[in-house]
Amino acid sequence: MTRNVIVGQSGGPTAVINSTLCGVYETAKALGAKIVYGMVHGIEGLINGEYINMSDYLKTEEDLELLKRTPSAYLGSCRYKLPRMSDSPQVFKDIFETLKKLDIGYFFYIGGNDSMDTIDQLSRYARETDSSIKFIGVPKTVDNDLVLIDHTPGFGSAAKFIATATKEVIRDNRVNDIDAVTIIEVMGRDAGWLTGSTAICRGDDSDGPDFIYLPEIPFDIDEFLESISKKQKEKRSIVVAVSEGIKTKDGKYVCDYSSSSRGIDAFGHKQLTGTARVLGDIVAEKTNNKVRAIEFSSLQRCAAHIMSKTDMEEAYLVGKAAVEAANDGYTGKFVSIKRLGNDPYGVTTELVDVSAVANLKKDVPRNWINEEGNYVTDEFIEYVLPLIQGEVEQFYYRGTPKHIPSFDPSKQ
Amino acid sequence: MTRNVIVGQSGGPTAVINSTLCGVYETAKALGAKIVYGMVHGIEGLINGEYINMSDYLKTEEDLELLKRTPSAYLGSCRYKLPRMSDSPQVFKDIFETLKKLDIGYFFYIGGNDSMDTIDQLSRYARETDSSIKFIGVPKTVDNDLVLIDHTPGFGSAAKFIATATKEVIRDNRVNDIDAVTIIEVMGRDAGWLTGSTAICRGDDSDGPDFIYLPEIPFDIDEFLESISKKQKEKRSIVVAVSEGIKTKDGKYVCDYSSSSRGIDAFGHKQLTGTARVLGDIVAEKTNNKVRAIEFSSLQRCAAHIMSKTDMEEAYLVGKAAVEAANDGYTGKFVSIKRLGNDPYGVTTELVDVSAVANLKKDVPRNWINEEGNYVTDEFIEYVLPLIQGEVEQFYYRGTPKHIPSFDPSKQ
Repeated sequence: MTRNVIVGQSGGPTAVINSTLCGVYETAKALGAKIVYGMVHGIEGLINGEYINMSDYLKTEEDLELLKRTPSAYLGSCRYKLPRMSDSPQVFKDIFETLKKLDIGYFFYIGGNDSMDTIDQLSRYARETDSSIKFIGVPKTVDNDLVLIDHTPGFGSAAKFIATATKEVIRDNRVNDIDAVTIIEVMGRDAGWLTGSTAICRGDDSDGPDFIYLPEIPFDIDEFLESISKKQKEKRSIVVAVSEGIKTKDGKYVCDYSSSSRGIDAFGHKQLTGTARVLGDIVAEKTNNKVRAIEFSSLQRCAAHIMSKTDMEEAYLVGKAAVEAANDGYTGKFVSIKRLGNDPYGVTTELVDVSAVANLKKDVPRNWINEEGNYVTDEFIEYVLPLIQGEVEQFYYRGTPKHIPSFDPSKQ
Repeated sequence: MTRNVIVGQSGGPTAVINSTLCGVYETAKALGAKIVYGMVHGIEGLINGEYINMSDYLKTEEDLELLKRTPSAYLGSCRYKLPRMSDSPQVFKDIFETLKKLDIGYFFYIGGNDSMDTIDQLSRYARETDSSIKFIGVPKTVDNDLVLIDHTPGFGSAAKFIATATKEVIRDNRVNDIDAVTIIEVMGRDAGWLTGSTAICRGDDSDGPDFIYLPEIPFDIDEFLESISKKQKEKRSIVVAVSEGIKTKDGKYVCDYSSSSRGIDAFGHKQLTGTARVLGDIVAEKTNNKVRAIEFSSLQRCAAHIMSKTDMEEAYLVGKAAVEAANDGYTGKFVSIKRLGNDPYGVTTELVDVSAVANLKKDVPRNWINEEGNYVTDEFIEYVLPLIQGEVEQFYYRGTPKHIPSFDPSKQ
């Protein structure tokens, strides 16, 4: 690589997004990049002139190993939606001026479908202005809802934590000889991939959750209550997993049946919370169960202490493949993951046009959800299972897994 | 041991209560006990004639190793308060008749201060009725609030999970370049041991939480808002840990400032939840922060996947010591843990009268909380630190830590 590199992280953090950052950094260095810059807080930070020379902070092999094990975006993230080129040409001029000043030849953006829109627009602008800078999008999202990719880095680690925690909560729920319903709320605004992953813990040593409700299927409160009541003829302890984004058939979010107010993020997404609590209140009112509502909350995306080794390695791989693609002259591309098989499990990367990925979402297919709409099928489980395999040895420090120090605590 | 043994588990589950069960079982077998019975759902189950022969289910070395790694009470638990002897003599007669029928010579009960009341009463009844059965109480509680013991088994593993998860949430909270306040709610109705343990993650690689509020100190909402606002002049991302049981100076629980209704458990304890949410709503209303409320919920007591090795070993040790004490002829005793030192860290067990422990609670001492009442001191941290050291190798099965199968799923 004859010119410098810049890399940014965007959207919600994951347990392994820094593994991808590490893959970009190490590969760029290995291919001869003189300086690898990091955007501080993504494209928004870059617009404000905030970036670092990553080599100032990643000095030793240990730094890199810690980086891979540290959750949440090391460089900081943003939820900044790049304006349309035609609306705000100045923003694009400013960005490209900064890139020119830093002698950037290669631009990498690690993120989800919103972030891929950023890469799409920047690569189009480059084409229109005869810039030779290469723009590559690198996948990341716990939600696993990107299209044209088998699965996204970040999902496997979140699923591993969720399956493990669900298994533990199921044990906890059954401890007393009483009718007990626990409702676990899992991330997933529109897609049920993470919620469905609670089923992975079903096996010889666990019943798994009794019911799983995904946002892909309209939620019926009466059917839900009936299912619980029917199941309780077999067993007293019931655990239900629900996606934060389930809606009744009139399109109303279940969490909106509560009184609390909610915010809206910069992309216009509703911030959802409280679905488990709303359902818990209904169950408590209608039945004699001891009810508990549990939100796995942001722990789902940052529980690096139990990250999936497969996920961590694939996160590194997509970062590496992105740099290799840019070095080979590609631009406006997205690094996809293709599954080669389950037995043995293996993947390869391939490039797809980033415009085909940007802003789109992938649901759980209907035939991977059971007929009643309250569980996932064996096909779903076989799909997720390889992604949560393997554990990463952590470096413990004072009894908790060690992280890489933040590069500038005062700024964050 | 010339007669049979019975053991029960009581109160809230922990990540290592089954390690204690294993210590009782293996030691009793080693000392010659013919049958080790397990009460199914504690003393309440025993009264209803529910018990198992543990050897029917623990057949291999692997079963025992899995048992030690399985969270929540294997035998099931209860929150049954034994009536006073004078009020309900028949209950005592019935229990002793069952014990006689099973040829029990030794009775062990693993639990917290409420459970020690059960041991106290049964041992008194035995003395009054010239029964030779030995009754020993074995400590367990994540809350660490028992008196006359350095610390309780279960606490170290809960503290390890809490410190780890807090460290991860702190990373997650700072990812965007915005003013963000996350409030983490930690278990602890009356004592702040677990909430204080969030401070353990403060070190070279983490700021730790910015403020910690324990139930030992009356909570002042204005001071709380002022502390956040002052801290945000230094940094944008603030993480606060609060105990579920904090109260304002008029004695009102902070969670009662919300509208949701709460239950009461069988011991008359209020079921607390929602403290973080109440405070989060106040911060959101009064400031421009992005606010998140996180409850670590029952995961705190069941996150066996990151149990403390020190805690697991000590949990086994108290089970073993209890059986040895009964075998030596002691009764009406409680197995306490005495710390021999921190450098090197070591403990021994000793026996104290169970009547001196029953129904009492131990707060965090005032001089282990800072003057402002919003953090713990270095002494507190030095006390907790050794208890969360060491990791236990888990047996992974399909990507999650393997548990021992339940002995009778249909019953629970």
